[in-house]
Amino acid sequence: MPEFRHDPIDNRWVIIAESRAARPGAFTTSVGWAVPTIPTEQTHAPVGTAHPTCPFCPGNERETPPEVFALRAGDSKANSPGWRVRVVPNKYPALAMELAPVPAQEAPSLFSSFPAIGVHEVIIDTPRHLGTIAELTDGEFTESWFAIRSRLHALRELASLKHALVFKNVGRASGASIEHVHSQLMATQTITPLVAEELRGAKNYFDAHSQCAFCQMIEAERSAGARLVAESLGFIALCPYASRFAYETWVLPRRHQSHFEATGDGDLADLASFSRGIIGKIERLCQPPAYNLILHTSPFDTTALDHYHWHIEVIPRLTISGGFEWGSGCFANPVSPENAAAVLRS
Amino acid sequence: MPEFRHDPIDNRWVIIAESRAARPGAFTTSVGWAVPTIPTEQTHAPVGTAHPTCPFCPGNERETPPEVFALRAGDSKANSPGWRVRVVPNKYPALAMELAPVPAQEAPSLFSSFPAIGVHEVIIDTPRHLGTIAELTDGEFTESWFAIRSRLHALRELASLKHALVFKNVGRASGASIEHVHSQLMATQTITPLVAEELRGAKNYFDAHSQCAFCQMIEAERSAGARLVAESLGFIALCPYASRFAYETWVLPRRHQSHFEATGDGDLADLASFSRGIIGKIERLCQPPAYNLILHTSPFDTTALDHYHWHIEVIPRLTISGGFEWGSGCFANPVSPENAAAVLRS
Repeated sequence: MPEFRHDPIDNRWVIIAESRAARPGAFTTSVGWAVPTIPTEQTHAPVGTAHPTCPFCPGNERETPPEVFALRAGDSKANSPGWRVRVVPNKYPALAMELAPVPAQEAPSLFSSFPAIGVHEVIIDTPRHLGTIAELTDGEFTESWFAIRSRLHALRELASLKHALVFKNVGRASGASIEHVHSQLMATQTITPLVAEELRGAKNYFDAHSQCAFCQMIEAERSAGARLVAESLGFIALCPYASRFAYETWVLPRRHQSHFEATGDGDLADLASFSRGIIGKIERLCQPPAYNLILHTSPFDTTALDHYHWHIEVIPRLTISGGFEWGSGCFANPVSPENAAAVLRS
Repeated sequence: MPEFRHDPIDNRWVIIAESRAARPGAFTTSVGWAVPTIPTEQTHAPVGTAHPTCPFCPGNERETPPEVFALRAGDSKANSPGWRVRVVPNKYPALAMELAPVPAQEAPSLFSSFPAIGVHEVIIDTPRHLGTIAELTDGEFTESWFAIRSRLHALRELASLKHALVFKNVGRASGASIEHVHSQLMATQTITPLVAEELRGAKNYFDAHSQCAFCQMIEAERSAGARLVAESLGFIALCPYASRFAYETWVLPRRHQSHFEATGDGDLADLASFSRGIIGKIERLCQPPAYNLILHTSPFDTTALDHYHWHIEVIPRLTISGGFEWGSGCFANPVSPENAAAVLRS
């Protein structure tokens, strides 16, 4: 069973999940004399053609655990073709779904751990074997966001889960092990450290200014323009002032909203169309495409929060974080967000 | 001039340093329609042969800024062949050396920045064009640590600098842009976030237990043995309990010592020989070798600290951090430190 382990000195949590070692492409370089072996990489089938060995293609439904949600033709059966979006448990989960209490915080101890409990699911965006978001239709991407919203609604009803992180790894350099476009959802009993820090920072800002930091950022960036990438009726894309990565781009709802799952159908369609355009620019920027997409939203045990604003962070993987980043916890970004936004606007 | 920018919501600092974009291999994938271009990768010369286009090989001293320190033959001139270890300012610095006050902390604001002031140097381990530490001799590696100690002694005398991070990127997948083995030293006016967190965590532990957390860890790991890799007279190597990365390995002095630069000559020779053996194991583990080595030591404006213990962290780059890691601030490690240590002991 995967376990969370705590480093008391750096105050950081790690999931030790050896089940993850077996997944395709778990390691980037060959491991000389270690236990895990590297499977040969999946060969590329013509775009949109069902791939005989792709576990996310129609006809191969038995290669994944049984589906927990799908949008499918009325006459089709679960775990068989006929679906348009399919959600399945991750075959190599970093979290295990069992009931266990979260241990109470105690004095710092050298060796603390607790079971890594939660839900680790995969959202397969389309039955078509596509490697990029730009190749999806707006309708497909809308249904994919619809499926994510449905899962968040369902999971927030489970009293044992507190928060969900949704993300997408596209391209080998992003950590993706399967080419067929998909998202992952990890719902946990605790709020993960970065989101906890965001919630704290946003609350501090709200307490100091009586305004949502993200709403103020949107207003300031719309007025300044230098870091603005694009806008739709309901959404805005910008390169954040303290971008960690070259061409890092955030997509936010223009109106204040703390929970992604509160987004209405019309706004989901707007989000799909708008974000597909932005992601397409980033996919064209990186050849081959390699980026992470991260959805940050509010904890399950909260309703509308004044101080937090859900958003999507798109992180192109153009540079490699090295000893400086991993040793300092700081980032060195070789492209200013002003120049990045100018490139992305063009 | 590079600048530190602050993200008030996530409370994280970023250096925006466009000067870094020009360095060889700054970007991992080709950048479709962006400004920076990717230089062709340096071709590989026979091991130990001076490489005509390597800026770190003897004869090419003019390709780097003038040296600030060198161990060289008595009759040789600065910035000419005859050196054994050479320290030069980084040609593409993420920090600029100028005098500027650190701004006072204020209420959280959306857009805070200050100039990224400091020293960014490169320590060239050997005149021989080698790509791994295992190929160095113990004597060469001892002189390399000696040069680092000398630079830390010199830089701590500058009142404007508060802390130095020393690190080594080996292999393309680690972020290295030049093959010839070298370290980097970044000395800053502030303590970088991860070291600040370590200092805080170590102080908390000391306050709770009246013992150095690292000393206690060493004692516990020697007694348990499962995560112990090796020991010398003065040093110990172990896979930490909450390892972030597969085969992450730390090297620590067995006796309590807060500042690396306080290490005596005999201990430096022991460190060089011992750490070269450990690093060699990791180099054989990853094919091609790819890892970061990070030295964490105490701030310049402190003397012997009871609660902090300098150490070296070696991070093999066998897995790619993806959306989960960058979105959550947590790590998912597919190899338990117990299994990693067993492999590294064998």
